[in-house]
Amino acid sequence: MPTYTAPTKDMQFILHDVLKISQAKTPGYADLEPDFTGAILEEASKLTSEVLAPLNASGDKEGCRLENGVVYTPKGFKEAFEKVKEGGWPGLDMPEQYGGQNMPAVIGSAVGEMFSSANMAFTMYQGLTHGAASAILAHGTDAQKDLFLPKMVSCEWTGTMNLTEPHCGTDLGLMRTKAAPQADGSYKITGQKIFISSGEHDMADNIIHLVLAKIEGGPEGIKGVSLFIVPKVNVNEDGTLGARNGASVGSIEDKMGIHGNSTCVMNYDEATGYLLGEEHKGMRAMFTMMNEARLGVGMQGVAQAQVAYENALAYAHDRLQGRAVTGVEAPDKPADPLIVHPDIRRSLMDQKSFTEAARAFILWGATMIDAAHRSEDKDADGLVSLLTPVIKGFLTDVGYDMTVKAQQVYGGHGYIEEWGMSQFTRDARIAMIYEGANGVQALDLVGRKLAQDGGKHVMAFFDLVKSFCKDNAGQDAAFDKDFIEPLKAASKDLQAAGMFFMQNGMKNPNHALAGSNDFMHMFGHVCLGLMWGMMGKAANDALAAGTTDATFYETKLATGRYYMARQLPATALHLTRIQSGADTVMALDAANF
Amino acid sequence: MPTYTAPTKDMQFILHDVLKISQAKTPGYADLEPDFTGAILEEASKLTSEVLAPLNASGDKEGCRLENGVVYTPKGFKEAFEKVKEGGWPGLDMPEQYGGQNMPAVIGSAVGEMFSSANMAFTMYQGLTHGAASAILAHGTDAQKDLFLPKMVSCEWTGTMNLTEPHCGTDLGLMRTKAAPQADGSYKITGQKIFISSGEHDMADNIIHLVLAKIEGGPEGIKGVSLFIVPKVNVNEDGTLGARNGASVGSIEDKMGIHGNSTCVMNYDEATGYLLGEEHKGMRAMFTMMNEARLGVGMQGVAQAQVAYENALAYAHDRLQGRAVTGVEAPDKPADPLIVHPDIRRSLMDQKSFTEAARAFILWGATMIDAAHRSEDKDADGLVSLLTPVIKGFLTDVGYDMTVKAQQVYGGHGYIEEWGMSQFTRDARIAMIYEGANGVQALDLVGRKLAQDGGKHVMAFFDLVKSFCKDNAGQDAAFDKDFIEPLKAASKDLQAAGMFFMQNGMKNPNHALAGSNDFMHMFGHVCLGLMWGMMGKAANDALAAGTTDATFYETKLATGRYYMARQLPATALHLTRIQSGADTVMALDAANF
Repeated sequence: MPTYTAPTKDMQFILHDVLKISQAKTPGYADLEPDFTGAILEEASKLTSEVLAPLNASGDKEGCRLENGVVYTPKGFKEAFEKVKEGGWPGLDMPEQYGGQNMPAVIGSAVGEMFSSANMAFTMYQGLTHGAASAILAHGTDAQKDLFLPKMVSCEWTGTMNLTEPHCGTDLGLMRTKAAPQADGSYKITGQKIFISSGEHDMADNIIHLVLAKIEGGPEGIKGVSLFIVPKVNVNEDGTLGARNGASVGSIEDKMGIHGNSTCVMNYDEATGYLLGEEHKGMRAMFTMMNEARLGVGMQGVAQAQVAYENALAYAHDRLQGRAVTGVEAPDKPADPLIVHPDIRRSLMDQKSFTEAARAFILWGATMIDAAHRSEDKDADGLVSLLTPVIKGFLTDVGYDMTVKAQQVYGGHGYIEEWGMSQFTRDARIAMIYEGANGVQALDLVGRKLAQDGGKHVMAFFDLVKSFCKDNAGQDAAFDKDFIEPLKAASKDLQAAGMFFMQNGMKNPNHALAGSNDFMHMFGHVCLGLMWGMMGKAANDALAAGTTDATFYETKLATGRYYMARQLPATALHLTRIQSGADTVMALDAANF
Repeated sequence: MPTYTAPTKDMQFILHDVLKISQAKTPGYADLEPDFTGAILEEASKLTSEVLAPLNASGDKEGCRLENGVVYTPKGFKEAFEKVKEGGWPGLDMPEQYGGQNMPAVIGSAVGEMFSSANMAFTMYQGLTHGAASAILAHGTDAQKDLFLPKMVSCEWTGTMNLTEPHCGTDLGLMRTKAAPQADGSYKITGQKIFISSGEHDMADNIIHLVLAKIEGGPEGIKGVSLFIVPKVNVNEDGTLGARNGASVGSIEDKMGIHGNSTCVMNYDEATGYLLGEEHKGMRAMFTMMNEARLGVGMQGVAQAQVAYENALAYAHDRLQGRAVTGVEAPDKPADPLIVHPDIRRSLMDQKSFTEAARAFILWGATMIDAAHRSEDKDADGLVSLLTPVIKGFLTDVGYDMTVKAQQVYGGHGYIEEWGMSQFTRDARIAMIYEGANGVQALDLVGRKLAQDGGKHVMAFFDLVKSFCKDNAGQDAAFDKDFIEPLKAASKDLQAAGMFFMQNGMKNPNHALAGSNDFMHMFGHVCLGLMWGMMGKAANDALAAGTTDATFYETKLATGRYYMARQLPATALHLTRIQSGADTVMALDAANF
């Protein structure tokens, strides 16, 4: 059975050696000294490895069960959820006003990764609640906030987001769910929503559904969509629970993975709903939630890669098979451990070098979210907006691939459910799909984010890379060769791709969109290359300053060199594909496929 | 629910336009005129789409069940197996002497792909039987052949291969199963084998297990391994069934996929076994079976990619979502079909261009197997030996990726089991693992096959590519640019990688083995590039000759151009990785991961 041990040391390295968060100007960051963040991470580590991880495989095997309109979560989930609530984890980065601890997002992200690694299906119950609470926080009236947020921040009530309908996912303008205005200012919501994560379950007294619907008589298509708060149980003005609302679960889906999370078909039958934000501006309000969710999903990709890697590494140490080609390494044993074999090393290094840089990318992104929210730093906000599709799309595509690689290390045992490696790939698979399938992320990046604010944010990103290279070149020939030069080359590829889009996308937008997936991937590689540059520099600085933990920092440098030599050069292939344009992609008439 | 329609037209194109099989000198090929092969393919197509494909999803859902030592296959399997036997399909390419139809392997391969696409788990029952029969055919005594083959060729009895034990898969030298010689020349086999596909089931009167074991007192390690015929039910000399043998199923595995196939833990408790081939030469005998199985597994990768693609394509036509960026394409509908979107096209073209070339690669390989077997063509035999790990490793790695891409086209519905796309990825996943995990294939290719017979076979392969380019260049500027030049460039990359191994692998074999996976993939790309060259040329010839089906041939050319522009350039990335050597791969002490 797989286990999970949170990479707290790596997280501390990123937070303090690399990002130096306690020295940043962002309000709230001054408190984030290493001892303080270390204590939080250790607590979270304990909870996730001891309480959540042991329920991961059993939750997968048992799944959720629907009986007479009630969904039963797997054995142990309810008790574990109580422990999570007792620890105040759901409100970690929520405002104190509503019972939260007001920690910055960078801490919430580090802890969130642990939760997702330990038990992705379980963590989604609180993850969706967090997203729904954020939307209410951003768009709700004071009365709505006061009524719903305290219970949601504590996870006494959980939340959901309801977008998809049977005939529409990406194209929400086709939506059919209706909202009929009532005399008291509320609405009656009627329609069916599908793929509703945590839509119904037995772990909370109430579920606050955020539901997209069209107000009767409003504009056609996406411009007529509004967002509504639809409680499972009606809430009285004093916060007590009233009668059951007209929201019910129709069925739960039989999915490839995340079996421990109840994915529901939800039926709304004249359910009472309350407008959240403005009429017909539902997409804007939903995007508060969606953007947060996309970053969270990117993290899920990394989290599954991390836990899968940990177990693959343990297996590579334990499993004895064959002998090292350069000579016997374990003469006292009948065979050498798998880890002596170069191709197993390659796989493990792929996993390790991706996961560590991806974590840094997410935490770096979180510092920008904090800067945007806490300091109203508009540049940081723009950069997060640009990078959101990269974090979601690239990290889940590659994160999934890494779980497949980890599974492969187990050979035949990787295919047997009992060993648990299959679950990591099955769970990770959904992250490429939900909250906007990765093709939609690539479209968002190339079709929308690149040109946003006149291309200002992508320019800022290139400047960041350029500054990093300039500031850190010429001091250490090995660092220049191993880190700076590859990063420069990759960044140049990315710029060339952007140039190709500019020059050709105007003539025919297909020339840009046919390369969108490649662009998202090359962008991701450049981001991870930058992260390895920053981590390499931090490691070099620590070594130069004289550290008692030289092995740790030297390992960081060696892992970074691997990424730079073996993964980052993928940008050249992506560029080749992009520069081949749309002609071969669009050549066939649809009928001739 | 997914459907399957066999790509018979594509198969006929490869067999006749490209490979021109009926003109080849190989004995038996003269009969293979288009009408004749077309009739066989149509029959197989009917059976696979009407009988086998409808049982695929239900077989996955129901799985196999073990009760009191008996394994029950899913509903409908038994009846379908009867139909397969009635049609004589299991003996299609087996000798007439034992009841087969003596068709060449190239026909067996085309039909085999259909069976695997339609129902991979089901097809494994006869696939393993075929492999076991081939081993008996190659290594058995006349008496053994006469006793076992007629029933195995008809699939009245099925077969298995028993290699893996709990502590050893790749490293079979660690094997513990024992064979004790008996006075009558038989052996008593005792030990446990795991991951035994089709190990026990209810569709045949007997199961002929081929079991690797060590004869007591024999040499240590792999040199003391022998192969035994161990019937589930003892067979009397007159071919009638005797008493039950000491071979029993311990449990069936709960796997990620291929649920319809019973993967068994097999216990041998002083079971009577008969030596197959020579004492202590069991690996040689097993490799007859294994090499056949590896080619079959490569085909499974392609077969799953094919059926997944067909369904993704249908969904891309049906599902309406969004509008084409270049303008509305279906004004009468609420939205355009998915297939208008460039990123969906990219995914479909990736799938289509891979699957068609991979099929050609397998059928081309099968013609060489036929040449080797029927004409004792040693060069063909050497080339097949070289290409076997490429067919197995590359086609299953990429085939799996393609099923993931096909699943992605479905968005959220791809994750729901009811839609069936998850099964294709779950089933395809095993093909990367069994019959030698793909890392072992890469090791076999680089560590063994490259240098085999003084490197003669890899030289022959390069000569083939060179000749193709030379013979077909300079006639058509577009063909040169779109097909010949990319193929030349990719082949040059592959040669450069081989050169790097030669120059650096002697100093340290890790420099070769750290690049083995990349080498296998670039080799695969060059093979598919060659196939697209051959298919492109055939299409051009047909168009020049004046065809009534110009669209078909033009579509081939367009698909080939896509592969050449978008997929084949991956060789450059693989070369970059290979040339970075083993240093970054092996840098870390095992303890520092």
